[in-house]
Amino acid sequence: MSALDVQVDLVEALLLRFLREELGAAGLSRAVIGLSGGVDSAVSAALAARALGPDAVLGVLMPYRSSNPDSVGDARLLAADLGIETREIEISEMADAYFGVAQVEDPTRRGNVMARCRMTILYDLSVEWRGLVIGTSNKTEMLLGYSTQFGDGAHAVNPLGDLYKHQVFQLARHLGVRASIVEKPPSADLFEGQTDEDDLGFSYAHADAVLYSMVDQRWNREELLAAGHAPQVVDAIARRVVRNQYKRLPPVIAKLSERTINQDFRYLRDWHA
Amino acid sequence: MSALDVQVDLVEALLLRFLREELGAAGLSRAVIGLSGGVDSAVSAALAARALGPDAVLGVLMPYRSSNPDSVGDARLLAADLGIETREIEISEMADAYFGVAQVEDPTRRGNVMARCRMTILYDLSVEWRGLVIGTSNKTEMLLGYSTQFGDGAHAVNPLGDLYKHQVFQLARHLGVRASIVEKPPSADLFEGQTDEDDLGFSYAHADAVLYSMVDQRWNREELLAAGHAPQVVDAIARRVVRNQYKRLPPVIAKLSERTINQDFRYLRDWHA
Repeated sequence: MSALDVQVDLVEALLLRFLREELGAAGLSRAVIGLSGGVDSAVSAALAARALGPDAVLGVLMPYRSSNPDSVGDARLLAADLGIETREIEISEMADAYFGVAQVEDPTRRGNVMARCRMTILYDLSVEWRGLVIGTSNKTEMLLGYSTQFGDGAHAVNPLGDLYKHQVFQLARHLGVRASIVEKPPSADLFEGQTDEDDLGFSYAHADAVLYSMVDQRWNREELLAAGHAPQVVDAIARRVVRNQYKRLPPVIAKLSERTINQDFRYLRDWHA
Repeated sequence: MSALDVQVDLVEALLLRFLREELGAAGLSRAVIGLSGGVDSAVSAALAARALGPDAVLGVLMPYRSSNPDSVGDARLLAADLGIETREIEISEMADAYFGVAQVEDPTRRGNVMARCRMTILYDLSVEWRGLVIGTSNKTEMLLGYSTQFGDGAHAVNPLGDLYKHQVFQLARHLGVRASIVEKPPSADLFEGQTDEDDLGFSYAHADAVLYSMVDQRWNREELLAAGHAPQVVDAIARRVVRNQYKRLPPVIAKLSERTINQDFRYLRDWHA
């Protein structure tokens, strides 16, 4: 038992209703999801398949040439488990066309370009499939800003954005996601042996515990330290949460009129006049 | 004189301050702007060059093989007028790598892929240049949703988002943007002879007048018709404004906890803890 444990039956029921309602509000009944072979996209796809029926879900596999073959393998197996259709489009040629011209060597920059190429493909295929792009970003990664803005962070609706990584794993087990996906270390899969936890410099368990206390329980720094969290980790996490706030909001518009978009001109996303 | 006329000196002063303040809040002093050869990106670039100094602004020219050569020509001349550095990266190979695999023929889909390839390049170059991506979307196009989500609609800060197209033209003349840019018909430049006004089915002058009364003056349908606007145009515009609301807001997150991102967990974009 962990303080972060959720009631998986209840969460599943809420998320299935969320997906049906949000798609309905958009006038659609089908979904498109990028499948990386990781646990987040597996849970999003499993939820979509249950909410809408497997025939309504398209899983898109978009490996780069250096992607671990196990990732595509796991994504294919997941799709077979769920009974959903897949499309495989390698992004190597597309991304390399740019990398070659601009001489991009930095792994972070290369990873961001890849994530944005994938978004581009996913959105294009969503037109053909007549579906909505379903997000796969969880609360831990959104708070830490451990994602690419307008890349994997770009989608129409997100069933996982209020679930910490621990809770995504819990839900994955509940939904019967295969062990090879649930048990491997989370990775952005940019180079061999890369793991999220090495990149971040702390474990997901640690990040989840700190974020839950900081965000959901509104503890301050003193309370977090008193609970035994190392100051370097608390400060590193707090810095990331603040610094990446821009990724969670729409662009700022210079206010000039009496009714500025997103300031005075504000309606719900599924506004119907 | 038009009801939409703005005081260009005042607007210029406000936008220069906006750009300096927003960049400062992000800890940056440099800007990256995609230059299409059109009036919107010309005005954004001219404002950035005045606000930050020409040396701090990078203009990026990203033609596709079917782009009108006059567009790149105008963008180059604009950059020379402003004294800003440019980078030219053709997107043909990058976009075609995908078009070939997925057999994308539809011009709207192709245009959206191109816009997203351009966003990808702009964001990548912003890392190298250590600058912020400055938007070029005006209020008319944002309200009509006449833009690509996560494409030309993706940027960090937007000086033009509260200016109708008429006002952008007014500001362009005030800032001394060259006649070849101000006088040509606005176009997404996807195929020869394309113009925005043909695509939309109404003129910018008409759209601006209806949107200004509808949004800024809060007129209802009866008042708009009484003012002499054709019902087909009023209804077409109203439908576009409502239907494209999703493009102006971040993705919806399924609420599960007591503190959900963008719902209960809300801070300003330039939040400093």
